[in-house]
Amino acid sequence: MSDSRAIGVFDSGIGGLTVAKALCDLLPNEKIFYLGDTARVPYGGKSASTVERYSSEMTQMLIDQGVKLIVIACNSASAVALPTLENTLPVPVIGVIKPGAQAAIVATRSHHIGVIGTRATIKSGAYERALRALDPKIDISARPCPLLVPLIEEGWLEDKLTDSVIARYLQPLVQDGIDTLVLGCTHYPLLANAIARFVGDKVAIVDSARNCALATRELLDRQSLRAPAGNGGALEVALTDPPDIFLRVAREALQLQIGEVQLREVLHPARAS
Amino acid sequence: MSDSRAIGVFDSGIGGLTVAKALCDLLPNEKIFYLGDTARVPYGGKSASTVERYSSEMTQMLIDQGVKLIVIACNSASAVALPTLENTLPVPVIGVIKPGAQAAIVATRSHHIGVIGTRATIKSGAYERALRALDPKIDISARPCPLLVPLIEEGWLEDKLTDSVIARYLQPLVQDGIDTLVLGCTHYPLLANAIARFVGDKVAIVDSARNCALATRELLDRQSLRAPAGNGGALEVALTDPPDIFLRVAREALQLQIGEVQLREVLHPARAS
Repeated sequence: MSDSRAIGVFDSGIGGLTVAKALCDLLPNEKIFYLGDTARVPYGGKSASTVERYSSEMTQMLIDQGVKLIVIACNSASAVALPTLENTLPVPVIGVIKPGAQAAIVATRSHHIGVIGTRATIKSGAYERALRALDPKIDISARPCPLLVPLIEEGWLEDKLTDSVIARYLQPLVQDGIDTLVLGCTHYPLLANAIARFVGDKVAIVDSARNCALATRELLDRQSLRAPAGNGGALEVALTDPPDIFLRVAREALQLQIGEVQLREVLHPARAS
Repeated sequence: MSDSRAIGVFDSGIGGLTVAKALCDLLPNEKIFYLGDTARVPYGGKSASTVERYSSEMTQMLIDQGVKLIVIACNSASAVALPTLENTLPVPVIGVIKPGAQAAIVATRSHHIGVIGTRATIKSGAYERALRALDPKIDISARPCPLLVPLIEEGWLEDKLTDSVIARYLQPLVQDGIDTLVLGCTHYPLLANAIARFVGDKVAIVDSARNCALATRELLDRQSLRAPAGNGGALEVALTDPPDIFLRVAREALQLQIGEVQLREVLHPARAS
């Protein structure tokens, strides 16, 4: 059995293209429909109830688009909204947190894992819960790194200034004795080189984008949802606000082929005004 | 004549509290009702049409609140939405751009003015237009500085890292020969000391928050809208998403007295879904 419908990928903005890229590389026959909520980005500093509402509106747009499976390529949304979405959406849903946590547990030798992400992701404690569900005795050092996303969006990927910010954020984690670091934000793989330079070879870096793509392939196989061979993969991108400079940064850094970007309005359920 | 209704202050988030603070200092008898759209902050990277729609929703909430005058304490919203709001709102509206431009024209000797702000503000060209309307021959060097807001929100106000980012952004403007620098974002007054350290005494810093408060006082006088003496000023704060760490940073840096922060939901006009 096979299924030629698209995989829906949802992110608060453009950072989730790192997940789309990993999916394209791993599943070249799949059509990917990417929806980024650039009109309300970032989710990372917002409250759980607001992130839940936004996530539910965006995934509904993907359902209306006719996708066969939804990837929540946003750590903040995965951290906060995934349990609700799993119970309400009519297609399988996969987030970035559990795959990242599983890869980190496999990688660690010292049983001390570092997690970095946005304020919302770290505050939610979702990685801690996912890690402890796999190994209750694991040590975890978590830290929000709110400057990394704007640094990436400036395109300052190989830059002394960015290196200093990374050092400021990661020094305490390295001192704590972590041997594995989870990049708990889909923007962060764009800084993987800079982060590796600071933490050195003794710390394994777990990229949640790639691990999410691997978990997606597994889920497609399990549910016989893979596209037929020769289906001809493609990436379509839709945003809720016109793209800015960061789309160019991401496209170049990821070497992504994207056609014309579509613009979609967020439809709110009718309310009294 | 006098009018004891509140002044409405609208910002995309919490940065506009620098304007509220300047208003409280200058107009101690006025009640100030501050509304920050923290559920959708920041506006700075978003498109003109999205910023216009958000601004119109937020100012309508202030009108429903019964304010006598609205201050758009957000440069991105002032840059993009002010002309429309002036034509549609039933109360006087004042933005941050024109007052800042006027103060810069008064301050400059070299007739070369620098302007810094968010991407949306700089891209809108609103400061250039306001400056050239006052002096068509003025030289302007404008630059978006998207990292400054997150640095301020981290609370890294007196910090070598922040100093390096400021140097990176401002070095080209100083080399261009500006003698006046407009802080075209309501967050930036919190970095006034750090910015002054870099640009030195030869560059005058124009704080759009303070100049906006001065223009508000003038407008109140002109329209006989000042609160009666002994009215007892107060600052009320409402946000569309619960406050985070930055409210504490702003409260401490500005020494603001704020009571309990109210939470307001954005009401969207009913649409087909």
